[in-house]
Amino acid sequence: MHGPTELHILERLLEDNEQLASHNQEHFDELGLLAVNLMSAPGAGKTSLIKSTAKLMPADCPIAVIEGDMVGELDVERLREDNIPAYQISTGRACHLDAQMVAQLLHTTKLPDCKILFLENVGNLVCPAEFPLGEHLRIVLLSITEGDDKPIKYPVIFHNCDAVIFTKSDLLPFCKFSLEKAKDAISSLNPAVEFFVVSTISGDGLPQWRNWIVEKANKKISHLHIGL
Amino acid sequence: MHGPTELHILERLLEDNEQLASHNQEHFDELGLLAVNLMSAPGAGKTSLIKSTAKLMPADCPIAVIEGDMVGELDVERLREDNIPAYQISTGRACHLDAQMVAQLLHTTKLPDCKILFLENVGNLVCPAEFPLGEHLRIVLLSITEGDDKPIKYPVIFHNCDAVIFTKSDLLPFCKFSLEKAKDAISSLNPAVEFFVVSTISGDGLPQWRNWIVEKANKKISHLHIGL
Repeated sequence: MHGPTELHILERLLEDNEQLASHNQEHFDELGLLAVNLMSAPGAGKTSLIKSTAKLMPADCPIAVIEGDMVGELDVERLREDNIPAYQISTGRACHLDAQMVAQLLHTTKLPDCKILFLENVGNLVCPAEFPLGEHLRIVLLSITEGDDKPIKYPVIFHNCDAVIFTKSDLLPFCKFSLEKAKDAISSLNPAVEFFVVSTISGDGLPQWRNWIVEKANKKISHLHIGL
Repeated sequence: MHGPTELHILERLLEDNEQLASHNQEHFDELGLLAVNLMSAPGAGKTSLIKSTAKLMPADCPIAVIEGDMVGELDVERLREDNIPAYQISTGRACHLDAQMVAQLLHTTKLPDCKILFLENVGNLVCPAEFPLGEHLRIVLLSITEGDDKPIKYPVIFHNCDAVIFTKSDLLPFCKFSLEKAKDAISSLNPAVEFFVVSTISGDGLPQWRNWIVEKANKKISHLHIGL
């Protein structure tokens, strides 16, 4: 979108989305869970990360997943194979989840008891950054196979997130990817960001990520309980 | 976009885009060149493919490139290092090139003499499929690191293209990726599609792709000359 009319329409859409995102966050807080928006390019490994994370979760920190895809239920099926509760949103022509899609699911579906709800966005490094869903944390995955220039080329999503997870680190020996260069580019946009370097094949880095997200969930939940 | 108003706006945008795309194609035909829309997820290797293809081009088939990126000129700089004429379109918040952006460039920039003009789209497997730019050919790159399920998850772009280039084939030994599964999924959407399997690291598959695209350009140009 680029003309003045289209920009006006986009601004209105984004305002409506912000309101619905706040509404969704109230739901998440009532349910006593940490909502985590997982964003990345297609094929960076969001579903694989969730599956590997679930295996490492403490028993008192169950997870659930809302899956955003244009069509089909492939990822929901992959998650259910591991007994992870998962709920599909089909976005159709849309290139991202939006707050209305999530609100509709929250109003029609009883989520299971869980401490962390992953919102797995459509694979896209552009539009998901502009459409908050009501999440408490925003995580971007960057596969090291995509190249270390991606933070410079897609700055909005890296500017506006809590952590970046470099995935497929087992392929580092075979790819020209400088973790230092990528981290520097992201830190210059977003100095407070946390970094993780993981491989779901070798398992490297997964415990550090698991510890961080569980701590975030526990802090969030104790905060909610103090608030009650 | 999902509500009735948004769908109406989208339909209108797409209609306007189609008209401008036809207008752009007239320009391309007047210039006697083959316009090729290159689409993929971020980091699938579009710029690397163009750089490697340029090195293999016959002297009578010069190329030029229009680069679509949200911000910056990184890819244009990479191409100019190899003396490839390249022109930047900054899409800002937009997640794809559209026909108006290309029309504006065509009306303000004198392109060099070339037989093939690559239109390198923004990295995205969703929206570029819906916004034709006036191209004669639509090519989708799928990096084998992204997984063989992508054609099922992003069907529109694979349904509506002339060729699919599987990139980074040098990483096949290290990734779970079935070329057969991916080809079957794409062929069931798009029986006439052509396939190439390439690596810009090893050079595998590049001559086959180069021969195909040069033949397309020669056919197109002889057709134009007959038409004159």
